[in-house]
Amino acid sequence: MNQVMGTQSISFAVPPYILSSGCVAGKKEKEGPLGRLFDKTSEDDLFGENTWEAAEGVMQQMACMLALKKAKEPPEKVRYLFGGDLLRQGIATSKGAKELEIPLFGLFGACSTSGEGLALAAMAVAGGFGDRMLAVTSSHFASAEKEFRFPLDYANQRPLSASWTVTGSGAFLVGNQKSPVRITGVTIGKIVDYGLKDSQNMGACMAPAACDTILRNLEDFGRKEEDYDRIVTGDLGYVGQSILFDLIRKNGRDIKEQHMDCGMLIFDQRTQNTSAGGSGCGCAAVTLAAYILPRLAAGEWKRVLFVPTGALMSTVSYNEGESVPGIAHGIVLESCAG
Amino acid sequence: MNQVMGTQSISFAVPPYILSSGCVAGKKEKEGPLGRLFDKTSEDDLFGENTWEAAEGVMQQMACMLALKKAKEPPEKVRYLFGGDLLRQGIATSKGAKELEIPLFGLFGACSTSGEGLALAAMAVAGGFGDRMLAVTSSHFASAEKEFRFPLDYANQRPLSASWTVTGSGAFLVGNQKSPVRITGVTIGKIVDYGLKDSQNMGACMAPAACDTILRNLEDFGRKEEDYDRIVTGDLGYVGQSILFDLIRKNGRDIKEQHMDCGMLIFDQRTQNTSAGGSGCGCAAVTLAAYILPRLAAGEWKRVLFVPTGALMSTVSYNEGESVPGIAHGIVLESCAG
Repeated sequence: MNQVMGTQSISFAVPPYILSSGCVAGKKEKEGPLGRLFDKTSEDDLFGENTWEAAEGVMQQMACMLALKKAKEPPEKVRYLFGGDLLRQGIATSKGAKELEIPLFGLFGACSTSGEGLALAAMAVAGGFGDRMLAVTSSHFASAEKEFRFPLDYANQRPLSASWTVTGSGAFLVGNQKSPVRITGVTIGKIVDYGLKDSQNMGACMAPAACDTILRNLEDFGRKEEDYDRIVTGDLGYVGQSILFDLIRKNGRDIKEQHMDCGMLIFDQRTQNTSAGGSGCGCAAVTLAAYILPRLAAGEWKRVLFVPTGALMSTVSYNEGESVPGIAHGIVLESCAG
Repeated sequence: MNQVMGTQSISFAVPPYILSSGCVAGKKEKEGPLGRLFDKTSEDDLFGENTWEAAEGVMQQMACMLALKKAKEPPEKVRYLFGGDLLRQGIATSKGAKELEIPLFGLFGACSTSGEGLALAAMAVAGGFGDRMLAVTSSHFASAEKEFRFPLDYANQRPLSASWTVTGSGAFLVGNQKSPVRITGVTIGKIVDYGLKDSQNMGACMAPAACDTILRNLEDFGRKEEDYDRIVTGDLGYVGQSILFDLIRKNGRDIKEQHMDCGMLIFDQRTQNTSAGGSGCGCAAVTLAAYILPRLAAGEWKRVLFVPTGALMSTVSYNEGESVPGIAHGIVLESCAG
């Protein structure tokens, strides 16, 4: 029997495996520290399409096909697809999922969506609702700037607290066949709102949610910080990280030893002019696929808490003066290697 | 064990119950044929807020609280909330869910979201991931016009094929305690695209997806049309209904006897000037809560296939000349009465 743990977590009786992953990224990501680890990168951020939205859809489709190819499975062997992106009405996911013809659960969790999708895919496998599920998310610098900020040609200045949306998509095939990495548990996040309103400082907006989910995970599973080799947040960036450390410390814990942030890993802040770091649904997803999973598969890390973080806002809510609450979901990944 | 049926469906070993529902609607909905059946209606479509988006969030919160009140459960007894709406970045759900402080899975399935939420809530209960889940969706005429169409003051003309977005929210508490209505199975829909591009004729865009999901449901469960007392689509309206009948007939089936459409039930087309009928995530949700569930609870209907339908588009995809694909999820509801 699957076990509910504490108030927000699940421990899987038979933990589902991550059978394979696929990741696709853009030009700037290729030039960054993880550039050589991505399955595919493109010099053309339009990926052969006419619009940024269509390009993002193509990235999702490519990421899914890469994951399927590595597992040697055709799309029709996938029971359900859990997918989402940052755009209004999840249009990149619609575009990408259409061609795959897999029954779809459309998600929106801002940049926490990769965690949401992995949690639901794992729950669907552990619940006996199918042998293979796909979880996919994406973001694209140009479609996100259009959706949330200024026209690219306007060349506006960015504050140091702003983040740089990652052009990338990551897909994960979750199933019950043996594989080197398992999802042993999940902690589903609540919306946490400290009342911040600065959409150019999303790290600060999301740090309280990350803190809440990490503390809840440790408590629900009765673990100490050091029970994880790494605690990896999605896209808090430099500003969000220092706030997270402060908040965690106020609660009598310290995760400085274990913490990494995908937004800080993916770009070289000094040379790439990316301010606080990378962000977007794609940031955590491609970093998980390219950087985190291989380390777990090799047994270099035994247990990782993956915590993608989302800032819940739209241009409408922002212009209406609403705050930017955060949400974060925790995924417990364990190595099956020796 | 839960059973996967055919290619897209699930039959629950121990079917979860719909423990209670809550529904809230606006002024025009109150004046319609179902007006007296809603739990709460408001003469003020702002629901005391300053913006349409905040009003929609308040409706979601009210619908959830009504469902919880009827089941005599506090929000902290709900394990997970599955919620979504039509607005960019699901801002109404963020607003509504924040106050409830229930761990959240944010969804986007356009107007099919009530089906998506009920399916996931039922899967979560049947998978052993908690005793009580909430599924909530909403739409608001004014926030949807702002999101998708023209400023209200512009008073643009509507073609007869256009639909009228329902101001309303419906919430469903799904759990494993005995109750008069159960969710015995689900059929998760694929994206179906016939290449239509007319966002003012969403019924036509969604009818192929409704047809696909209904046929798949009948096939996966080995059922005939007459095995359902009613097959209820979400918001196809008058135009979409006639296309659905044609498509179903071309596949050698006929659902004219069983078919109802929430969009056609909720408004009086002749007197309320609602063109093809009601639409929006809220349309199917409030009709299910106010009209369908009571008939199942009374045993008047024994088995109903509830099929909310969504049109996957945004103003960006529309302006970029993309088609409007559809998606529909099927929920099998059965009466436990006599």
